[in-house]
Amino acid sequence: MVHRSVAMQGEDGALRECGLAALAARFGERFSRSAALREQHGHTVTWLANEPPEAVVFPDSTPEVQEIVRQCARHRLPIIPFGTGTSVEGQVNAPAGGVSIDFSRMQAILAVNEEDMDCVVQPGVTRKALNEHLRDKGLFFPIDPGADASLGGMAATRASGTNAVRYGTMREAVVAVKAVMADGEVLTSARRARKSASGYDLTRLLVGSEGTLGIITELTLRLHGIPEAISGGYCPFPDVEAACNAVIMTIQLGIPVARIELLDAAQVKACNVYSNLGLPEAPMLFLEFHGSEGGVAEQSEKFAAIAGDCGGGDFHWSTMAEERTRLWQARHDAYWAAKALRPGASSYSTDVCVPISRLAECVAETRRALEAARLVGTILGHVGDGNFHVLLLVDGQDARERAAVDTFLRDLIARSLAAGGTCSGEHGIGQGKAKYLAAEHGVPAVRAMRLIKRALDPGNILNPGKLFDAAD
Amino acid sequence: MVHRSVAMQGEDGALRECGLAALAARFGERFSRSAALREQHGHTVTWLANEPPEAVVFPDSTPEVQEIVRQCARHRLPIIPFGTGTSVEGQVNAPAGGVSIDFSRMQAILAVNEEDMDCVVQPGVTRKALNEHLRDKGLFFPIDPGADASLGGMAATRASGTNAVRYGTMREAVVAVKAVMADGEVLTSARRARKSASGYDLTRLLVGSEGTLGIITELTLRLHGIPEAISGGYCPFPDVEAACNAVIMTIQLGIPVARIELLDAAQVKACNVYSNLGLPEAPMLFLEFHGSEGGVAEQSEKFAAIAGDCGGGDFHWSTMAEERTRLWQARHDAYWAAKALRPGASSYSTDVCVPISRLAECVAETRRALEAARLVGTILGHVGDGNFHVLLLVDGQDARERAAVDTFLRDLIARSLAAGGTCSGEHGIGQGKAKYLAAEHGVPAVRAMRLIKRALDPGNILNPGKLFDAAD
Repeated sequence: MVHRSVAMQGEDGALRECGLAALAARFGERFSRSAALREQHGHTVTWLANEPPEAVVFPDSTPEVQEIVRQCARHRLPIIPFGTGTSVEGQVNAPAGGVSIDFSRMQAILAVNEEDMDCVVQPGVTRKALNEHLRDKGLFFPIDPGADASLGGMAATRASGTNAVRYGTMREAVVAVKAVMADGEVLTSARRARKSASGYDLTRLLVGSEGTLGIITELTLRLHGIPEAISGGYCPFPDVEAACNAVIMTIQLGIPVARIELLDAAQVKACNVYSNLGLPEAPMLFLEFHGSEGGVAEQSEKFAAIAGDCGGGDFHWSTMAEERTRLWQARHDAYWAAKALRPGASSYSTDVCVPISRLAECVAETRRALEAARLVGTILGHVGDGNFHVLLLVDGQDARERAAVDTFLRDLIARSLAAGGTCSGEHGIGQGKAKYLAAEHGVPAVRAMRLIKRALDPGNILNPGKLFDAAD
Repeated sequence: MVHRSVAMQGEDGALRECGLAALAARFGERFSRSAALREQHGHTVTWLANEPPEAVVFPDSTPEVQEIVRQCARHRLPIIPFGTGTSVEGQVNAPAGGVSIDFSRMQAILAVNEEDMDCVVQPGVTRKALNEHLRDKGLFFPIDPGADASLGGMAATRASGTNAVRYGTMREAVVAVKAVMADGEVLTSARRARKSASGYDLTRLLVGSEGTLGIITELTLRLHGIPEAISGGYCPFPDVEAACNAVIMTIQLGIPVARIELLDAAQVKACNVYSNLGLPEAPMLFLEFHGSEGGVAEQSEKFAAIAGDCGGGDFHWSTMAEERTRLWQARHDAYWAAKALRPGASSYSTDVCVPISRLAECVAETRRALEAARLVGTILGHVGDGNFHVLLLVDGQDARERAAVDTFLRDLIARSLAAGGTCSGEHGIGQGKAKYLAAEHGVPAVRAMRLIKRALDPGNILNPGKLFDAAD
């Protein structure tokens, strides 16, 4: 089933110019066609080619987004929602041209309901800005992808991060969204109640839809109480299998670990250099526990015993904020640390997620595949969920390397799918992984997705060229 | 937008008879048109009128369900999936006739992946049967609606229960489903990985769709480790407001309570009589904590302090299995206890769910409304989620009472919606609440739901007459 795509040519061209002119007249200085701004709104984080939109518009409100969508629908202009531009699979590229809607002017925190532990925000608010705002209320928002991404973008890509093993991903964190649909109508996906058995779960349908079904203009998010005590630390292992076995036992024993991160030896080496850590250069777990003073001590000691049983070294842990912060800052800087392994190289961060029983073999095989392909890269992951990342440092000018990367990625995904896993645990599909969608989900599921897309966006104006592969 | 409904008349009638004959020939003794069996497969749990299907068929496998769906599609026969028939909003009624698919022959537990803490089951497996099977593996499945419902039905209605505050609802518990779609194709909604950012969330779309989008023939479910220690107990409060305040503080302080249930004074009185409990006849919280020995003691003591601060009485708690079991058995028998308040009356159990900040006023107003309407009923709820039930004991022959019930329900839902809540926390929409769908979600959201329904089931053969109101 091929969905009509919007192409910037022929009579459509004139129609679209007319739409762009109308938006220019309406939004004045909040509308731009400058080359620099357009390029900045194309994809820049990885080495996918930059495909800039034809224009960028900066709305202030949901009604303005409605106006933009209606103009674009009338003039067959594609619409690409833009948060902070930190997605990594080409989600903000404009392969069919069109208008990028930049949400940087919609950064209001509209409400914090302390008793209900939720908040209502505009999509341009970033996760760090939200946590800054929440700090003195004793609440926090746990989802933490590497970048300080916008919450609208995080919802659209179903983002997660290091806390997902305890607090879930954007799938669990989003209570409801307000979204402008392709016909310009505003939909509210759910009420503020914690649970509901009323109607189709439009919230979960929009979360992870990457801007292809509706444009999120407001989010209600679930918050959590800042824990009374936090302990954190690191533990080396002789190999990734041993580390993964410790993860499985920790999860199975119901220890409510808040973070459990694997770094392979190469990544530890990179972090040692970049963040001056002095850790043994072995596969390493970084952990964090949240709870009462007594609770986190108990959890830490239980984990230490598990690590010992699995052949791990000493678990060095502390409840001191300073030591923990140093460790987690290093973890968050892992991307920059890995980049420093090969100055000047392009970086490419990819992720897969497998059932944890298959994690050890999958990580070990991936390490071997990197070496066999003579690629520079590190492996790190949110292993409590079975999710791991490969950070590749690539000479983009070297045809052999680029070909080796393509093969490596294809094999990595095949390995994940064969293990019952997914082609992406948290980065999403965008353009980069569209060709794997059918391999993962099968033809009937992709067909259902396309039917839904066509029902809700018959003109294919919402972020066209994403998620679905033209060949499917 | 009116969706074409399947009516059992005119030339359709002959076509449908032909389809029924074909199914009879194919399924032999596993197909029946007996009046008793048909009536048993219409709605029986509440006082909604019983609308029996034209026939009942008992498939053994997914391919057989495919055959049935294809026959039904060809002959315009509605299809109503049937688990244990314990839904309470008319979900299994057959207002447009058609074929009930009874899953009682599909009760296999296909796999238990202990390391990944998940399992794969057929839809006819009940929650108790699953837990029986899991017991010696140290794992359990936490979702516990009152009835021993089938897991397929629980997924279809997005069921939850007393453990949802800690472990989530079927929304969180279902990892993936296999579903036969309206065209007879089998779709797998997701992989077995714990999280994924790949494509639309078809799992969450099918969970809660009440058989209107696809027929679930296999489920992958998330399991949890049986906790090392459990403590439980009860605590009386002077009024429901005080009890609700204690709930809010417990949640806000991040105490990982596993169950926190409110019973109003009328329900406590009923349980005292039915289960011989001897509790003070005051609003009461029943609680349960899961964790380590030290952890559950700490949690119990913290809650006792909170209850004291909120004006509650002593928190009587124990880690002894016998005492806890007696209490929770009484909680699970609350429905029968309430029924005994008025022998011979029809019972009607309804539920709403509101943000917990609004729970106290909503419960108190509901109590007053019951009294003002001179209705016999009790209130009890999964208050950690803001979810509460009203159990009405109604003389179905009394026109005044029936009218009073209609008004009471309408006002209850209006109260919930005005508080930012939903018209159903866990029972679903079915027939009984279809008229409230648009009031809750708004026209654009219901329109999106209808577009999805029409895209995936253009012939409207999957459980027609449910969820959507003909007048919308």
